[in-house]
Amino acid sequence: MDAFDLIIQGGTVATASDTFRADVGIRNGKITALADNLSGATRTIDATGKLVLPGGIESHAHIEQESATGAMTSDDYYTGSVSAAFGGNTSIIPFAAQHRGQSIDDVLDLYHSRASSKSVLDYSFHLIVSDPTQEVLTKGLPKAFEGGITSFKVFMTYDKMIVSDEQMLDILVTAREHGALTMVHAENNAMIKWMVKRLIDRGYTKPPYHAVSHPAAAEAEAISRGIALASYVDAPLLIVHVSSEAGANLVADARRAGKKIFGETCPQYLFLEADDLDREGAEGLKYVCSPPLRNKQTQEDLWRHLQAGTFHLYSSDHAPYRFDETGKLSNGPNPPFTQVANGMPGIELRAPLLFHHGVNKGRITLNQFVAYTSTNAARLFGMHPEKGTIAIGSDADIAIWDPALTRTITADGMHDNMDYTPFEGHSLTGWPVTVLSRGEIIVDQNKLYAERGRGQFVHRRPFDPVGYSSPTPPEMNPALNFGARLLD
Amino acid sequence: MDAFDLIIQGGTVATASDTFRADVGIRNGKITALADNLSGATRTIDATGKLVLPGGIESHAHIEQESATGAMTSDDYYTGSVSAAFGGNTSIIPFAAQHRGQSIDDVLDLYHSRASSKSVLDYSFHLIVSDPTQEVLTKGLPKAFEGGITSFKVFMTYDKMIVSDEQMLDILVTAREHGALTMVHAENNAMIKWMVKRLIDRGYTKPPYHAVSHPAAAEAEAISRGIALASYVDAPLLIVHVSSEAGANLVADARRAGKKIFGETCPQYLFLEADDLDREGAEGLKYVCSPPLRNKQTQEDLWRHLQAGTFHLYSSDHAPYRFDETGKLSNGPNPPFTQVANGMPGIELRAPLLFHHGVNKGRITLNQFVAYTSTNAARLFGMHPEKGTIAIGSDADIAIWDPALTRTITADGMHDNMDYTPFEGHSLTGWPVTVLSRGEIIVDQNKLYAERGRGQFVHRRPFDPVGYSSPTPPEMNPALNFGARLLD
Amino acid sequence: MDAFDLIIQGGTVATASDTFRADVGIRNGKITALADNLSGATRTIDATGKLVLPGGIESHAHIEQESATGAMTSDDYYTGSVSAAFGGNTSIIPFAAQHRGQSIDDVLDLYHSRASSKSVLDYSFHLIVSDPTQEVLTKGLPKAFEGGITSFKVFMTYDKMIVSDEQMLDILVTAREHGALTMVHAENNAMIKWMVKRLIDRGYTKPPYHAVSHPAAAEAEAISRGIALASYVDAPLLIVHVSSEAGANLVADARRAGKKIFGETCPQYLFLEADDLDREGAEGLKYVCSPPLRNKQTQEDLWRHLQAGTFHLYSSDHAPYRFDETGKLSNGPNPPFTQVANGMPGIELRAPLLFHHGVNKGRITLNQFVAYTSTNAARLFGMHPEKGTIAIGSDADIAIWDPALTRTITADGMHDNMDYTPFEGHSLTGWPVTVLSRGEIIVDQNKLYAERGRGQFVHRRPFDPVGYSSPTPPEMNPALNFGARLLD
Amino acid sequence: MDAFDLIIQGGTVATASDTFRADVGIRNGKITALADNLSGATRTIDATGKLVLPGGIESHAHIEQESATGAMTSDDYYTGSVSAAFGGNTSIIPFAAQHRGQSIDDVLDLYHSRASSKSVLDYSFHLIVSDPTQEVLTKGLPKAFEGGITSFKVFMTYDKMIVSDEQMLDILVTAREHGALTMVHAENNAMIKWMVKRLIDRGYTKPPYHAVSHPAAAEAEAISRGIALASYVDAPLLIVHVSSEAGANLVADARRAGKKIFGETCPQYLFLEADDLDREGAEGLKYVCSPPLRNKQTQEDLWRHLQAGTFHLYSSDHAPYRFDETGKLSNGPNPPFTQVANGMPGIELRAPLLFHHGVNKGRITLNQFVAYTSTNAARLFGMHPEKGTIAIGSDADIAIWDPALTRTITADGMHDNMDYTPFEGHSLTGWPVTVLSRGEIIVDQNKLYAERGRGQFVHRRPFDPVGYSSPTPPEMNPALNFGARLLD
Repeated sequence: MDAFDLIIQGGTVATASDTFRADVGIRNGKITALADNLSGATRTIDATGKLVLPGGIESHAHIEQESATGAMTSDDYYTGSVSAAFGGNTSIIPFAAQHRGQSIDDVLDLYHSRASSKSVLDYSFHLIVSDPTQEVLTKGLPKAFEGGITSFKVFMTYDKMIVSDEQMLDILVTAREHGALTMVHAENNAMIKWMVKRLIDRGYTKPPYHAVSHPAAAEAEAISRGIALASYVDAPLLIVHVSSEAGANLVADARRAGKKIFGETCPQYLFLEADDLDREGAEGLKYVCSPPLRNKQTQEDLWRHLQAGTFHLYSSDHAPYRFDETGKLSNGPNPPFTQVANGMPGIELRAPLLFHHGVNKGRITLNQFVAYTSTNAARLFGMHPEKGTIAIGSDADIAIWDPALTRTITADGMHDNMDYTPFEGHSLTGWPVTVLSRGEIIVDQNKLYAERGRGQFVHRRPFDPVGYSSPTPPEMNPALNFGARLLD
Repeated sequence: MDAFDLIIQGGTVATASDTFRADVGIRNGKITALADNLSGATRTIDATGKLVLPGGIESHAHIEQESATGAMTSDDYYTGSVSAAFGGNTSIIPFAAQHRGQSIDDVLDLYHSRASSKSVLDYSFHLIVSDPTQEVLTKGLPKAFEGGITSFKVFMTYDKMIVSDEQMLDILVTAREHGALTMVHAENNAMIKWMVKRLIDRGYTKPPYHAVSHPAAAEAEAISRGIALASYVDAPLLIVHVSSEAGANLVADARRAGKKIFGETCPQYLFLEADDLDREGAEGLKYVCSPPLRNKQTQEDLWRHLQAGTFHLYSSDHAPYRFDETGKLSNGPNPPFTQVANGMPGIELRAPLLFHHGVNKGRITLNQFVAYTSTNAARLFGMHPEKGTIAIGSDADIAIWDPALTRTITADGMHDNMDYTPFEGHSLTGWPVTVLSRGEIIVDQNKLYAERGRGQFVHRRPFDPVGYSSPTPPEMNPALNFGARLLD
Repeated sequence: MDAFDLIIQGGTVATASDTFRADVGIRNGKITALADNLSGATRTIDATGKLVLPGGIESHAHIEQESATGAMTSDDYYTGSVSAAFGGNTSIIPFAAQHRGQSIDDVLDLYHSRASSKSVLDYSFHLIVSDPTQEVLTKGLPKAFEGGITSFKVFMTYDKMIVSDEQMLDILVTAREHGALTMVHAENNAMIKWMVKRLIDRGYTKPPYHAVSHPAAAEAEAISRGIALASYVDAPLLIVHVSSEAGANLVADARRAGKKIFGETCPQYLFLEADDLDREGAEGLKYVCSPPLRNKQTQEDLWRHLQAGTFHLYSSDHAPYRFDETGKLSNGPNPPFTQVANGMPGIELRAPLLFHHGVNKGRITLNQFVAYTSTNAARLFGMHPEKGTIAIGSDADIAIWDPALTRTITADGMHDNMDYTPFEGHSLTGWPVTVLSRGEIIVDQNKLYAERGRGQFVHRRPFDPVGYSSPTPPEMNPALNFGARLLD
Repeated sequence: MDAFDLIIQGGTVATASDTFRADVGIRNGKITALADNLSGATRTIDATGKLVLPGGIESHAHIEQESATGAMTSDDYYTGSVSAAFGGNTSIIPFAAQHRGQSIDDVLDLYHSRASSKSVLDYSFHLIVSDPTQEVLTKGLPKAFEGGITSFKVFMTYDKMIVSDEQMLDILVTAREHGALTMVHAENNAMIKWMVKRLIDRGYTKPPYHAVSHPAAAEAEAISRGIALASYVDAPLLIVHVSSEAGANLVADARRAGKKIFGETCPQYLFLEADDLDREGAEGLKYVCSPPLRNKQTQEDLWRHLQAGTFHLYSSDHAPYRFDETGKLSNGPNPPFTQVANGMPGIELRAPLLFHHGVNKGRITLNQFVAYTSTNAARLFGMHPEKGTIAIGSDADIAIWDPALTRTITADGMHDNMDYTPFEGHSLTGWPVTVLSRGEIIVDQNKLYAERGRGQFVHRRPFDPVGYSSPTPPEMNPALNFGARLLD
């Protein structure tokens, strides 16, 4: 056995399927050995009493991204990736967002330039498509795909980003032809706008009315429609940030029917609730996000679905808008709910929240924790097994967790560029204490050791449908078969 | 790093979550190292181009077991375990069957004595309970449980084994109190008997009428009832050999509702069909099993459910009755379907069938193959991580597969004590070629190297519900909570 | 136009489909004319401002019936039919109950003798079958059927009445062969007995524990099983007194699947709740019935199902046991819930309760009221159109209601042989004021004009499946078709 | 009893709930008596051996209506109403279609003028809304409603008629405020257009591709969305021409959930199939309609739903385009499927088809036949009890049927202005032989006796929700309650 650059000694390793006591040997940024007893390294980390886990993969984050209204998130690729790293993550896949009229080349050039010089973590992008012209469909997306961007995202709401059902079919079928996975923000735009108008007309402008105007029924309708469109062209579809039982049921029904439909949920829907929107003064603005926070019963419903296998992903939907005039208060100190930037930070707390409420409370196993925070994203997004696991040959992207460490969350304690956290004051047990990226210690004992821009772009592989449905789904109706034939 | 007794070199290792190129180092029967390059062993196996997988765990097999009618299976613990070994298995969990009037102690003594002197594989038993007296409930089962038998089985059909609903509640609640998992053969006894009588009365005695008399509706009814009983007392329940879409839907519905309900299916329901019962002459008798074979549509339905996560287990239900006067023809050369021993052999072919039809055909991943043939059984039945995975510290229970090897199945080629196989003539690609049990090579290149009786009893841990439902299921109705409180 | 014996003038007539202003002409006990203006009768009733409705048909009542424990209901055919008449009913179909060992002939002779000399209303019987011997199946039931008894009832609970699943199949298929409709009391006996034992063992003996021991899950399980058995042999089945949402969903699902499954609910499940069992002192005993009372949410669920067409029948399940030592207190003044006669009176209040809470509150139409209280029973039980409607040629069985009359319910005000009513103190608007049976005024202005024994036995026709499913249900599986073929 | 203008003697009368032998006395156009024996009329019709039924109400027909492309249906209000009359109908409710830019006043003036001078039957209109401006919503629709037009219709497909989801909410909430019922043509426009483009691009232009491009999935998606929108604002919605099992299931699910959702199906989906589109030469063009014809399994599914109560209405969707250059061939003798007028005639055959295949074949009762062809439409559309029944005070709108008369259908035998019928050559037993409108014989023995323009406009009442859901649906979610409150 060759020598190692680094050995992590005495820890308990966990993957998506196994937990075992092992030393981890690392050489040239790769994991090259797992053994009961390793020696012969330049450097050693003592992980006794600690958990040695695959670094998290944050696959839903808005970083250095202009919103539809032109506002910029407070985190750029430096602060965003640093905050992610402190939260135990080693890869991030934020969005590269096409605004209407932009070419895909331009969009990707822009985001590559933003990330490459700043990110401390390895990264890729999901490509948001808002303007699927023929040029985009036949040249832009194929070229993006060739360049390793194998996931697209569409919006069924937000006037500046929304695609029509017909455009969505074009994107889905293009994705399917190449092997890309499409993600969707699913809320019925009309139901929201219709109610928003009525509310504003009648003077209902406070934050709680944000939740009123974005009912679970609007989410369920759009999820149902998204599934209909995707299964019509036999394309895989990932429903992001599912926030309601009705929505989760639709995802579960679809997959049981042999459709390649996947679901994601987020910490805010498991740990916060709509009542938070009704906090004193302007505090409620901090909790404005879409889909909106729901209620305690929904939290239990989503836990149940997490346990039953409905969701493959658990992501932060980190959307950092400061509680000041650059963010939440950009339209004054008391804006109507319609003029508040949507979203909240969470990239650093995503994994600790799930560890505390999931693993510690006996709701999920440590292996499920690994799957939800890392492995499943690596698989769905074409990064496995380089990323997302602790296995021979994989990148040494590792988070060492102290399962006994208790901390109380404060905005000050976070490493993002935010001035608040929606989880202020929550006390959690179980935190990452040392983080390695490709064998390099980038976080240790609350200090950052990563160089700005050290992160590398991850050229991802196509979406792999094996294991999710059979090559020729038996339930295909004649029209769909016909359509499928035509696609050849 | 210490030296090894054995190194498996150059293979591709797969677990339930990962696939990677690694050498496997073994010492004292345990896996002590996984690395890109190991050396320093007494003995080396070249696994270049091969797959290095966790040995299979066959958790549903009838071995050296008297049937309800007193007939004995053709395989004893020697031939049964040998056949299993040649099929890539390293552990077996056959049944220890209580017949009415027997004490649990006597039952277990008997099966321990049968297995300990003959099994070449490590083994445990599921305890079949057919006579849940107070003595059995308060002494027999707790003592069995203390002795490492942490799974019970009940029958909802077969006059000599059937338990009433009330007895089933007693067993389920006893299992729940101790942490045991209950398994159930779920078919509605009355529907079967009622139809059998009508068929026989009218002279419909040929094998196909076996399927007619055991409709999917009878399975679905019993599964529905079993779920009702188990969830009433908040006990986990494993529905074995699910053979119909209706049955699979019930399992999936229950788990989505937060109930601890699990499902198993078997090769015969994926690869054979009811038409096989209509083969020339007495040939159809070979295909008599319960639940009976269904049809092609059902095969597709079950694949879909396998992909959607409905089933945790895929087992052989090996029930070897020879095609002679000791078995299938014990009631003459042309018996009515009611007088044919139920069951067929399959312990040796279970894994190769799934490899060929699942992995090779792109229906499931190699990791799912590992999960279905090994890891999931280890987890559900309290043997993980000693068994069911390739990880540091785990037993070196390993099957080395040649994924390119093609063989045509013949009864002669099998190592069980049978004179037929229902899969005669099927050609499969992908076979285990070398099998290790606790680091010892027991099968290699079609030869057996295992000593009779070398297998060890596995003292199993309790069923662990974490990850399947929350500690306090939110859907509990008041009556159930009340019941739960009373159970304390 | 011939002259009339009686004209009801100026009222508003309602049938199950229509409401119209008309005079009703009656001759020889039949309705012979409906017109805007009739004259030429011996006698005239002024119904101005009143509703002229088909007399109610009470199809679920226990009258002059020994309970399984030998206790006799407080109402005989005289008081029972008189109370029914004051409640706007003109026909009753109580039960003729076979106890084990009895021949069907004896049972029917007994009930015929009880009813014929006392009933003031026309009557028939549902035949309860508790002992389906070959004699009973091949001679007793066919003869009963020939005698106009075209509905049978079975119990899935109560030790003295319960039939096994296999017996139930025998009864269902016998009913199907003749064209009889089978009714079922569906509760899982084992779940109830198992919990009862635990409760009693621990000293939980008060009335509320009756509800605890009879959970909705037990009802749902038995309904599911009953539907499985009935659809297995393609026989119609009526689930009586459905008391839970889960149960109602099963009925609705089954009929949507093309099965001939019907449902009934009762006033107690719409207007009372389990909390009534917790009333002061022994008062709770008055509310012990099976299935037990549920809660407010269930009331809403059942209304919803009533509106959606799930239920065809709304019946009283009149089971009159006095609140004294002959009834509820026969086992002392403070009996455990297991030793209290199950049931409550309601035959007189059934229709007024639905009128007030259904028609007056805008939940159902007047025509639905007629259907639920009269027409649907006539149809399902083979008495239509002689009974159950106001149409030319039909019996002049008519209840004239004053929709504006408000009364407060008291036990004293009832005409049954009871000493309490569970609805004491409720105030209802809308009461029958005049009741005609075959053209004869039997109740008017709170006075009885009926002679004891004037009621006639109604020889009923077979159950007619037209309109409920197609002659050859397309969903029949091969086994069922096979079974069906064999039945010929 | 006063004298009669007309007596129908000796027939068997049927309503939606009852069937009875009675003479029917008519005076001043109203039914004034039903009796076993009437006399004293100026004129008498002998109906011995005949059925005396409420005249049909055809509530889905396109008559004298410009299509979106400007083409005119071949039937005007004269030929359309005459054909309807020969088919046993006495009322018609065709569409008054707003094209974009038109005021509602203008639309209604136009259709009133078309109908009033020509229709031989009483009539009303459903108002198609394609341009819901503020003017239309706040003035046009309320005024139309005041004028007795209490049902609106919207399209979710067809570029010239389609309304957006947001517009649909506006229309639904306006309808709800006034008590109007909204109807919807539910197909997903994008799925259709997307597939049409692909098909045409690839040269797939023959009629069968019409069915390919309009899959059941597109119908189901739109129905699901329509239900979501309607229930969001608690408005009633009628899904017209449901053609698929998936669609019917959604309707049934919604109503069970307490939503005011109704369904209609049509003869073409019960009696024709997609294979008809593949007939020789251009024949397939005759069978192009939307939603398209499906298959035999779907026919059975729809029958099952009809029996289970899913549908309230059965309508012709009469859309008469001749098989010549004015209609089907207006774009040449061999047009691509996209350039063929959608629709087929059926107003005259609707009822006879259901009588033959439904009543004669034992699938539905005669009373259900009456409900589906007449009474239910009268109720839902605010015309009951003047129309839709045979009851005292109702209009004498009566169709006398000869249940034994067998005829073979030919285009020549029809009385519409068409040159083909899709049912050519079908032989049906049971036909209307005499039709009365307000007591006037308008059809008798195959001859017309009606004066052009004798039909009267029916000023309809609001939609009455009683019986379909409770005043305050318990399932209302907070957002909806909130919305509902805001609507006040």
